[in-house]
Amino acid sequence: MKLVSFISADGRPGYGALRAEGILDLTHRFAERGATTLRGLLAAGLLAEARACAERMTPDLPLEGLRFAPVIPDPDKIICVGLNYRDHVAETGRTVTEKPALFARFAGSQVGHLEPMIRPRISAEFDYEGELAVVIGTGGRHIPASAALRHVAGYACYNEGSVRDWQRHTGQFLAGKTFAGTGAFGPWLVTADEIPDPSRLTLETRVNGEAVQRTTTDLMITPVPELIAYISTILPLLPGDVIVSGTPGGVGAKRNPPLWLKPGDVAEVEISGIGVLRNPVDAEDGA
Amino acid sequence: MKLVSFISADGRPGYGALRAEGILDLTHRFAERGATTLRGLLAAGLLAEARACAERMTPDLPLEGLRFAPVIPDPDKIICVGLNYRDHVAETGRTVTEKPALFARFAGSQVGHLEPMIRPRISAEFDYEGELAVVIGTGGRHIPASAALRHVAGYACYNEGSVRDWQRHTGQFLAGKTFAGTGAFGPWLVTADEIPDPSRLTLETRVNGEAVQRTTTDLMITPVPELIAYISTILPLLPGDVIVSGTPGGVGAKRNPPLWLKPGDVAEVEISGIGVLRNPVDAEDGA
Repeated sequence: MKLVSFISADGRPGYGALRAEGILDLTHRFAERGATTLRGLLAAGLLAEARACAERMTPDLPLEGLRFAPVIPDPDKIICVGLNYRDHVAETGRTVTEKPALFARFAGSQVGHLEPMIRPRISAEFDYEGELAVVIGTGGRHIPASAALRHVAGYACYNEGSVRDWQRHTGQFLAGKTFAGTGAFGPWLVTADEIPDPSRLTLETRVNGEAVQRTTTDLMITPVPELIAYISTILPLLPGDVIVSGTPGGVGAKRNPPLWLKPGDVAEVEISGIGVLRNPVDAEDGA
Repeated sequence: MKLVSFISADGRPGYGALRAEGILDLTHRFAERGATTLRGLLAAGLLAEARACAERMTPDLPLEGLRFAPVIPDPDKIICVGLNYRDHVAETGRTVTEKPALFARFAGSQVGHLEPMIRPRISAEFDYEGELAVVIGTGGRHIPASAALRHVAGYACYNEGSVRDWQRHTGQFLAGKTFAGTGAFGPWLVTADEIPDPSRLTLETRVNGEAVQRTTTDLMITPVPELIAYISTILPLLPGDVIVSGTPGGVGAKRNPPLWLKPGDVAEVEISGIGVLRNPVDAEDGA
């Protein structure tokens, strides 16, 4: 099942199941059980009921006029993983660490599928990072890696847009990683039943149609189950939490000459079994 | 005015104005205007009305049986500043950077005044960091430093409890900075009218009554107005956002021998014009 968060043509936020014919709007179907958002649906443990609805009912919302929101617009936590592919570690001149490098991104930095990614006015060094996003369905603390995938609701694409000069201001990445409108998250959530093993996916990032990053997710240094185990040692994971699992080699900053995203570009992240997250690039002050 | 967030004796979360005689419960007074939390009060722009209430009405909630919640239990963002005092930079063996080192802490890692700070079971290297917390009242983007203090609702103490071995797993601090129950935030918000200049405060951290950190806030490398300007260049600041402005020298990890917080200890952060944030230390699995 594919689940989307959206803003309807009349400006109403909602979520639903995506089908070829349109969207089955679930926004009000589970409202009395607290599930007026996709995060709320996961927190209420209603994924199976949503699937049953999606299978027997007819889509009632056309895609026309609707805007995609970030898959989870309001997560409690967005935890990003740095330097989780060897080819990216190598191109940055760093060395592999035994543990994953975690940093945060704030929810207000996110945009949905087809919405513009925003190059800030303060910098020309705006870079793409294609990544697999993991959305937690069942929360927990001290989750063992062996049980971790049972805590996953599903997967999506993430373009972890990075402002490189601000990322390098200090040793801490946050400043360059949470500019408004730089984190594209979509196009939708593919539920975990369709992706039994997140280490068997292919990922490709494209800029204006040209492939710039390519990997298979078995090359992650810390795989998804171990990421969940590590993070949940620190604090409880909650339904709707997002783990952005790291980018492979090929980032724009390490090309010669560097390849920066500029207004008018189109960035895409495609992951097998999920789909294509596509975003035009705009300038902060209008394209 | 002192504003507190609390959990009432019967388990109800709320907020109010603190007076010598008790608390004036404001939780439901502005509910129809969306302000059922202190963050909501700030977002609705009702600080002046809350002050008018607090001045003319009698406290209606005794302090007995009430538990302090983190000053803002549910901020959109908690932005911490690393290495913002020269004596702390020096004791860590690092060099001063031109820009502030930002990292995040998640809201779920916070505890209120008098609640236990939790030493995680995974580590014995649990350290204190006394800091001045700045709470945003009026949101904004690209706020100039010259106007920044007008965006501040008030100030509180923060004990930015840090798990040092996990902080050192990689170059990114987040893992050691957001363990559950490690971020003490209190005892209350002192509104900015009582603290016209946050660079004229004294801060002292104590462990079991003994002073371990002492500074004056004029020694911040990046002062509060410049922090607000820098952060709001990245993304909009929202009412209730928390900036934790950095710790001075004297942290436990850099003492010889190191001074780690252990179950049974009492940690305090006192800031002039605000008060004393006091927390016992418990073990994750019970003290």
